[in-house]
Amino acid sequence: MIVVMKPDATTAQIANVAARIEQMGFRVHLSEGVERTIIGVIGNERPLDREQIERMDGVERTVPILRPFKLASREFHPHDTVVSVNGVTIGGKQLVVMAGPCAVESREQLLETAWAVKNAGAHILRGGAFKPRTSPYSFQGLGEEGLRLLALAREETGLPVVTEVMEPQMVPLVTSYADILQIGARNMQNYALLHAVGKAQRPVLLKRGMMSTVEELLMAAEYILSHGNDRIILCERGIRTFEQYTRNTLDISAVPLIKQLSHLPVIVDPSHGTGKWELVEPVSRAAIAAGADGLIIEVHPRPEEALSDGAQSLKPSRFAALMESLRPIAEAVGRTL
Amino acid sequence: MIVVMKPDATTAQIANVAARIEQMGFRVHLSEGVERTIIGVIGNERPLDREQIERMDGVERTVPILRPFKLASREFHPHDTVVSVNGVTIGGKQLVVMAGPCAVESREQLLETAWAVKNAGAHILRGGAFKPRTSPYSFQGLGEEGLRLLALAREETGLPVVTEVMEPQMVPLVTSYADILQIGARNMQNYALLHAVGKAQRPVLLKRGMMSTVEELLMAAEYILSHGNDRIILCERGIRTFEQYTRNTLDISAVPLIKQLSHLPVIVDPSHGTGKWELVEPVSRAAIAAGADGLIIEVHPRPEEALSDGAQSLKPSRFAALMESLRPIAEAVGRTL
Amino acid sequence: MIVVMKPDATTAQIANVAARIEQMGFRVHLSEGVERTIIGVIGNERPLDREQIERMDGVERTVPILRPFKLASREFHPHDTVVSVNGVTIGGKQLVVMAGPCAVESREQLLETAWAVKNAGAHILRGGAFKPRTSPYSFQGLGEEGLRLLALAREETGLPVVTEVMEPQMVPLVTSYADILQIGARNMQNYALLHAVGKAQRPVLLKRGMMSTVEELLMAAEYILSHGNDRIILCERGIRTFEQYTRNTLDISAVPLIKQLSHLPVIVDPSHGTGKWELVEPVSRAAIAAGADGLIIEVHPRPEEALSDGAQSLKPSRFAALMESLRPIAEAVGRTL
Amino acid sequence: MIVVMKPDATTAQIANVAARIEQMGFRVHLSEGVERTIIGVIGNERPLDREQIERMDGVERTVPILRPFKLASREFHPHDTVVSVNGVTIGGKQLVVMAGPCAVESREQLLETAWAVKNAGAHILRGGAFKPRTSPYSFQGLGEEGLRLLALAREETGLPVVTEVMEPQMVPLVTSYADILQIGARNMQNYALLHAVGKAQRPVLLKRGMMSTVEELLMAAEYILSHGNDRIILCERGIRTFEQYTRNTLDISAVPLIKQLSHLPVIVDPSHGTGKWELVEPVSRAAIAAGADGLIIEVHPRPEEALSDGAQSLKPSRFAALMESLRPIAEAVGRTL
Repeated sequence: MIVVMKPDATTAQIANVAARIEQMGFRVHLSEGVERTIIGVIGNERPLDREQIERMDGVERTVPILRPFKLASREFHPHDTVVSVNGVTIGGKQLVVMAGPCAVESREQLLETAWAVKNAGAHILRGGAFKPRTSPYSFQGLGEEGLRLLALAREETGLPVVTEVMEPQMVPLVTSYADILQIGARNMQNYALLHAVGKAQRPVLLKRGMMSTVEELLMAAEYILSHGNDRIILCERGIRTFEQYTRNTLDISAVPLIKQLSHLPVIVDPSHGTGKWELVEPVSRAAIAAGADGLIIEVHPRPEEALSDGAQSLKPSRFAALMESLRPIAEAVGRTL
Repeated sequence: MIVVMKPDATTAQIANVAARIEQMGFRVHLSEGVERTIIGVIGNERPLDREQIERMDGVERTVPILRPFKLASREFHPHDTVVSVNGVTIGGKQLVVMAGPCAVESREQLLETAWAVKNAGAHILRGGAFKPRTSPYSFQGLGEEGLRLLALAREETGLPVVTEVMEPQMVPLVTSYADILQIGARNMQNYALLHAVGKAQRPVLLKRGMMSTVEELLMAAEYILSHGNDRIILCERGIRTFEQYTRNTLDISAVPLIKQLSHLPVIVDPSHGTGKWELVEPVSRAAIAAGADGLIIEVHPRPEEALSDGAQSLKPSRFAALMESLRPIAEAVGRTL
Repeated sequence: MIVVMKPDATTAQIANVAARIEQMGFRVHLSEGVERTIIGVIGNERPLDREQIERMDGVERTVPILRPFKLASREFHPHDTVVSVNGVTIGGKQLVVMAGPCAVESREQLLETAWAVKNAGAHILRGGAFKPRTSPYSFQGLGEEGLRLLALAREETGLPVVTEVMEPQMVPLVTSYADILQIGARNMQNYALLHAVGKAQRPVLLKRGMMSTVEELLMAAEYILSHGNDRIILCERGIRTFEQYTRNTLDISAVPLIKQLSHLPVIVDPSHGTGKWELVEPVSRAAIAAGADGLIIEVHPRPEEALSDGAQSLKPSRFAALMESLRPIAEAVGRTL
Repeated sequence: MIVVMKPDATTAQIANVAARIEQMGFRVHLSEGVERTIIGVIGNERPLDREQIERMDGVERTVPILRPFKLASREFHPHDTVVSVNGVTIGGKQLVVMAGPCAVESREQLLETAWAVKNAGAHILRGGAFKPRTSPYSFQGLGEEGLRLLALAREETGLPVVTEVMEPQMVPLVTSYADILQIGARNMQNYALLHAVGKAQRPVLLKRGMMSTVEELLMAAEYILSHGNDRIILCERGIRTFEQYTRNTLDISAVPLIKQLSHLPVIVDPSHGTGKWELVEPVSRAAIAAGADGLIIEVHPRPEEALSDGAQSLKPSRFAALMESLRPIAEAVGRTL
């Protein structure tokens, strides 16, 4: 950390700040510039609370030097982490496509979709049993009945299952049915939930919050990693901006950026990232071209009857066509699909 | 809801959409324009899922006509809601100031602060026992010990207590100590938590998410209201923007806007809203001038030693001076402090 | 346009609004709902000022039905516009890569770069003679000398030249040297400049403003189109968001979205879109995969000596490698490079 | 400036960066930390291009230490600048209210408004002769005829006049009629225009761009100041965010923040800042309470007939009531109105 002193900071104030930092167990390095003095803090600054120092007399501001995440960083763990789930590996040469309905609605709807995405080449079945909805008047999911249907679909098709868990006390229940626990965008900073899935020692699909930075996403992963659980798949799903024609703004640069900063695999959700089924196909291609390790895509046999997010769901035939169009892109970037 | 059809929508597609809407229990109203046909949906559209219709052939987009919140709206409940907490009323002529440390750190720190803010004229004591922190390496609060200290401070000073609850299963514990349950910004869309505090029938301080619109804030309140709990105090605490000199961008217009849209009281958090103690005083004045029903302010006896958010905390003497400077503003807008 | 009346609007107020709309030359269509009356405005609403109506008694808000752009829309002009510049076509099957230094610095720097990008397969030479800089203390470009060097480089290499014009009165000067006039992001809503390049009847590269919606970009194009100049190439170059690790957030969905809404070609600027040379390569691949008609990329022989934007410039060898890696992606989406 | 080296930077790379910085005329200060080496750059870093250094081998990133603005900073000029315009002073104890129609529409409309705002206590008349409009199909202003009417209104009422200038070559024309030249939000980074008004040596009202940080606003002022013109009034008018119920998000904290960073006066535009006339009154009060030096407010005798921005204009009677309600707030913060 660097402490920038005000131009009119007194010698006593500078000495005072330096003393405080040393008292916290760090070494100090002073540098007097033409307009300002700066104080370098030497040591692992991560647990240090910058705001305490910022409140001291004579301090203008502080600047962190180290990235705040450690276990999630590529520096700490230089090789790519590959997550294995019932024989499917995520983060290796093979790309992974998770597909299925936004919400599980019925046995028929789920099985029809599961078989359709499996036949088109998907590797994992997605489907929501518990649905976070902006409005209390919207469909909230089938709950445990949805989980049972997912397990049934896994049994029939052999596809591992990913589904969202929304509260800490539901982690055991969801864990008893699902192969991957999904943390939704709204819960990326639900720390009690992060602790709970960290302890569950089960693969986690961690979605970026719609107004979270990449740094905050990696800090959320750090919570899970701090429990020794490194089976984490990150997911870029679009951030909130002023643009209104799309539901979110998919941050494509986040994909190579995360690969550079972290060892964890990263996939892309073009369905939520755009909110429009017509954009899912081109954006899926872009994600693979940018280096994503996979995709998570909403598919519904009859999107115009879907109980949630119909507008962003693909019909099975479009999904199959998309899978076809992805293969040459995957090849072009040295991956297989 | 209005359904805007594509310019090349066929008569069959239009009929199809109209039939589907009627089948859902609504009446339909067609209007043929020069470039497009639009279909009006007549009835309470709130439970209707717009995305289902958007996915139908020939549909360009849908436009909601009704605001999605109902119980939270001023239309539904024209008179101001006034929340009573142990003799303190929020939302009436009297302004309410909640003050105290960001985090409860020790008996001494809390009591010293509690007496200082009480003597300066604060009405409610704030203090965090459970702290949501971006980093797992930061201080996470004293937990139940913090709650006990808050109860002790209430006993000694007579000030009611507001503190954050971060997970549904902690609601009974926090309810047993606190007078007002605070939902933090990161949890504004933690629906399990909203249901839990709704059922607790205890006053709730609901903070706007840093990534949330005013509409979404009112929808979060709707979750709580749907349990018959209308003792809700909304809180504007700044939203996330591209501006980096302040921690958040305090949305001052949200105050009169919420008063216009809703009957619920609204207060302002200038400490988180700016992140800089020097800005807390002018922004507090602005909040009262804009019509806020009160403030929630961080005060710490020695901010440079605070275990969290020191940079945005006021010393007790500055807090006392702020209270003095607020009185003529309060008077100018017909309120008392 | 739809006018949504307040729930308590009187019959007289509704009649008044209807009368005003008819007086403006539109037909009116009333629809009485359960909670609100809405008034449909029938006719070409584009020149109509919604705010006039919004200010009338009893009006809650207005909702536009037609997109505000007309000449730029695919509805108005269903076939793709292909822009020809000295034998290079933009918007057809062939992808177009524009490359060169951010700023023209010297004869040697420019020629070295021009030959390098030509040899690697670029089709058009980019280079700034007039540079918009946030700081008056930064290098502002060589001015007309820079234009002369660009013309010289064109003569030597045969590459057409694109360069930025920053003020209306400079349009004739820049037109006398350049093949394509670039409107920078900061000038996207500089209407005097848009009129000037519209009148110049020269190809225009129109960059999206860093805080402009896709709709506003198309409205800026509409200004140029209104002068009968349809040789416009749109450019997605990243928008401003809260994310700080990248300079801007490249909006990849904007590419297929613009192709859907408009007939104009669209290219992507991964250099400004990311601000980091390491991200240029993956994001370039993503842009082509998403359907962009081309790229504009900063290349500098010695980026660490560049007088502007060094951090986002590629060395010629990296650029050549990038071009190679783009070819299979181009093929995969049915394009040639 | 601080240069943060990568954890694996070699001694040769560090030496190389240091040598380059010294070659640029700065002194260098090395500090070896536990995980990274940082290099301090000593000297006036403002003209230095950080990106050049960022592109060097072994460099992770650079961090500026000095604020990039100098002439606009309070450090450089500790006392408040007071701008005098025909006997009206802006930036002193006396608050200044600029009021009038968004656009000049006719002699009658302008004179009626001018007398109304003067009688209510306004100090300066605002009115647009040249209007920047998103759509080429919207009313673009009366042009020079509008300027003539503004001069006439000044003659009759004695109020100085502020009006927008949109292009450099119009500066002489507008200067010949107006007392204060307004730079609109869309032109805040139109550098040719900033240079032109800098040279004109006439008071300038500089509006913050809707996509601009406070730092960028002060950098735009720096352009004007670099011509020796310090008669600049800054204006906060709202920034663009994800919130859609208001037209912009007025950044109230920017007012005290600018007062802290700069010596220039700052006023607030609640009309554009909110886009809704019902919010103008509370937000005006908030602005004064936060320490603004004045306001600029749209007033129109018949807002429902206004040719632009009707929805955010006050009727004269509301404006008079607003002025009354502002007086006690002004007094409460030690100002007069």
